[in-house]
Formats: sequence, C-alpha cells, structure tokens
Amino acid sequence: MSLIAYVNGEFLPIESATVHIEDRGFQFADGVYEVVACYDGRFFELNAHLQRLQRSCESIQLPLPFSLERMESIVRETYTLNNLDDAMVYIQVTRGVAPRIHMPAGALTPTLVVTVRPLPEVDEEKALFGAHAITLADIRWKRCDIKSIALLASVLAKQEAMHRGAHEAFWTNEQRHVLEGSSTNILAVINGTLTTHPQDHQILGGITRDLALRLAREHDIPTEERPWCLDEPGLSECMMSSTTNAVLPVVRIDDMPIADEQPGPVTKQLRELLLHEISAMCSS
Amino acid sequence: MSLIAYVNGEFLPIESATVHIEDRGFQFADGVYEVVACYDGRFFELNAHLQRLQRSCESIQLPLPFSLERMESIVRETYTLNNLDDAMVYIQVTRGVAPRIHMPAGALTPTLVVTVRPLPEVDEEKALFGAHAITLADIRWKRCDIKSIALLASVLAKQEAMHRGAHEAFWTNEQRHVLEGSSTNILAVINGTLTTHPQDHQILGGITRDLALRLAREHDIPTEERPWCLDEPGLSECMMSSTTNAVLPVVRIDDMPIADEQPGPVTKQLRELLLHEISAMCSS
Repeated sequence: MSLIAYVNGEFLPIESATVHIEDRGFQFADGVYEVVACYDGRFFELNAHLQRLQRSCESIQLPLPFSLERMESIVRETYTLNNLDDAMVYIQVTRGVAPRIHMPAGALTPTLVVTVRPLPEVDEEKALFGAHAITLADIRWKRCDIKSIALLASVLAKQEAMHRGAHEAFWTNEQRHVLEGSSTNILAVINGTLTTHPQDHQILGGITRDLALRLAREHDIPTEERPWCLDEPGLSECMMSSTTNAVLPVVRIDDMPIADEQPGPVTKQLRELLLHEISAMCSS
Repeated sequence: MSLIAYVNGEFLPIESATVHIEDRGFQFADGVYEVVACYDGRFFELNAHLQRLQRSCESIQLPLPFSLERMESIVRETYTLNNLDDAMVYIQVTRGVAPRIHMPAGALTPTLVVTVRPLPEVDEEKALFGAHAITLADIRWKRCDIKSIALLASVLAKQEAMHRGAHEAFWTNEQRHVLEGSSTNILAVINGTLTTHPQDHQILGGITRDLALRLAREHDIPTEERPWCLDEPGLSECMMSSTTNAVLPVVRIDDMPIADEQPGPVTKQLRELLLHEISAMCSS
C-alpha cells in the first residue's frame, strides 16, 4: 500500500503528491520545516516541534497556514492514514505559489506538506562503536536559529563527510568553536561537564539537545552551555543529538581519536536516559 | 492561451506543471538556476548563462541533466512554444527526487524545469528618477558565487526593503563594503571611475555587470573592481545591474541622497550603451 502525504488540504498517495513549479519553496527556499518522531502512535514532543515551527514562520514573516490545534490534527491524521507504528513525520510550510519574483507584493496562500515515512532503524553499530565526523569551516548563513529549508550548505557538508568516509560534519566558526553538525547538535564532555554551544544565531536549538541537557541535570551530570573547542584539555567524550537517533557517540573527528576511540560513560548513560525518557513520554 | 513550462521531458500548461514534494529543490534548496532575457526570439547571452549554470552545478557536484547543446535546444523550444516576443526564461536544475535525507547514497536523476514569462516592462520611472535602496548587514552564506536556489536571505532582504519603502537592499560586509543587492549587482562612480566589488565568494558574477564593465572600458570610462564603501569621498553615482533592467540609477541609500538625488551622467550613458548593445546583440 502506498504511503499517504498531505498537501494543501488533500491526502494523496505520496508518489503522486506534488507542488507547483513556482512554489516559493522550490524556487527560493522560502519556507521552514520540522521532523517529528512518532512511536506506536505517540508523538515525541509534538507541541515543542509545532511551537518551533510557528517561531520559524514568524522569523520569516510567513503566516502559519492554520492554528496550532489544526496543524496538530492534520499531522495526527496523516500519521493515522499511513498505518505505521514508528514513524518520522515531516512538516513543511512555504510562502506559497506566485510567478517568480523575489518578493510578491500581495499575501499568498502558504503551502503545507506533511509526509510520514518509517522511522529509520536505530543505528546499533554507531551506538556501539561510535560515529566518525569531520570539521568544516562554517559557510552557512547567519540565521541558523531559523529551521529553514535553505539547507544547501548542510547538504554539501554531508556530501563532503560521506566523501571522506565519515558520518557527520561539524561546523566550526572562526574561533574554532564547535557549533553543530549538518543535521545534529554536538555535545562534549569536558572535565566531566556536559558542554554544548549556547543557543544563538549559529545553531538551531534542538529539542533532543534540550532534553539531553535537562536529563543530565536531573541525574547530577554538570552541564554548561558555552563555546568550546575540540582541543580543550579535559575533553573526554563527544556525541551528536537528533530527533531520530537520541544521542550517538562520536569517537573520531578528522584524524583525531576521542579518548580511546570508544563510546564514553556519560554518552552511554545519556543515551539510556534519553531512550528511557522517549519511551516513557510516548507511552503515557 | 496558457503559458507552457518544461518539466523533466514534458511540455505542460504552467498551471498544471508540478514537481514531487520530495524533490530536493523543494526540501533542501539543493539546486541552481538562471534567468535569461529573450528579445523577439533573440536570447541575450544565452551561452554565458548556460555556462554559468554548468559551473553552478559543478560547484555543488550536481550533474547537468543534459549536454549544453541539448539544454539550449530545450530552452529555445520552451520559448518558441510560448509565442511571446520579449520573454524572461527561467531555468532550474535540482538534484532530483528521493525520500528525505540530507544526502542520498546513490545518484539521482536531476530535475530540470524551464518556464517562460513575459519580460517585465522597462521601469521607466526608476530609469528617469532613480531607485531607493537600503543597506543590510550580509547574513548570507559564504558561497554567493554559486547561483543556488537557497535564496531565503535575499527574500528577507527584499521584504525588508519593501517594508521600508525602498526598491532594493544592498548587502554590506563587516568592513562596510558594498557587495551586491538582493537580486542585482551594485556599481558606483567614485572620482569618475566605475567601481564595483571584485568577484569573490561574496558576490555572484553578474553577466550584465560584466557587460557594463566591458562597455565602460570600450568607451573610455575608467573601471576598477575593488571593495568600496558608501561614504567614500568622490562617490557621485550609484547604480544596480540585472538581466531584466540593464542598469538603473540608485539615488537614495538608507537616508542618504546620492549627489543631488538625480540619475548621474555615467549611469545614463551606461544605460544607453547597455540598451544599445542588448539591441545589437539580439538582432544580429
């Protein structure tokens, strides 16, 4: 049976789900998105994702197509129609369709697309043995706090990582601060403190990142949000967080092994805490 | 009669021309584009545009869908099917369709879209009285030399310009150098020399910009490609260049009038030279 997508009021087999060639998402990257995980019918932090979507929309002066309540019911309905247990739900809003010009004078009707696909399998190999990353000088725009679809820089970063046999690329700024990955947030353990770049225009405030920080604090792991570098003395672990993978250990960055190139104890503990929390939140 | 668009091998009424919702142009801004003017069947610098499209594709490791010759014939055929005299032809290439992931492992079939719309009317009012601009700190990515569809920053700039009653926004960097506009290149006359930012990662090398420089040199107007600021002594004129408008005078920037807020003699001369050259190149 075909997967079902929602496009502007219609539920369609995904194969035949399309948008107009002059949709501003296609011609100008004039839109924003969210990715939400759903476990056996329970969405993980759906409200937080929808609220962030609303903030992204506001940042580019794009009206949310519907109220948050209506958005939520469209997301839930699309999920239900797909008969999947664990799913990854993708939500995209663009400014709509208009003959191509940088900024049309009048208001447009926003485009709303929702797709549902099976949640990727848990990457047990990376969980057990750790992922490899490369670092790249940050070439992205200066509003990475907006979850926009203008993702070409991140695509090129992932392309470069794959080309070099790695799994993720870490963006670093001119001060060599580690900012975030191409599709993940990055956290390190430095002298026992879970450390990650503070929320500013250089990173997207990840929902899993925030949860990891909260769980760490609740379990007496010290946390600090501050700029940090890979060559800091006392750096013993590195991990990446995302909606689809909780946290995964990163054991090699460029040609540098982290500690003994094995997942560290804080990473393993946080991964367990996150998986437990996700499981608890999604069955309550 | 409906306009006709080309989409992946098919000619369709533009109203029903669509791309898949998982096209990477729609989800990742993973694509590049060109805008070409055509006057009564004669394309202006079509080869230069197609070669730049090829360079843009190479920059993001995206194969051009067809040879340059085949691309040219598709563009010409789409133009012809539209029965327009003066037209603006839009060409977009994206990496193709795949379930959403930052970088699919295998090769995809690129998407090619070509649209033809009437060439916008010459903006006589701006040509006669000059345009207004604002300046904005450059927030774009660091590969502005690639003509990518990741244009959200430029959209926001144009939105801000319109909100403030201006026609264009000029990007300036931390050294306060004027880089380019949201959809134009910017040139100034400083102590009699036509001055514009050199081609680097901060600007797109505009085809009309290059032509303006060449025509200036051929007509004994000194030219210089160097970083420049708006408050330089001797700055007497400012203009913006684009495919659809040749050059247009800019007579007010933020709250600063340029000279006596009238189009200056070099701008007027260059506009005449450009219009003459376009006319000559498109009737030969």
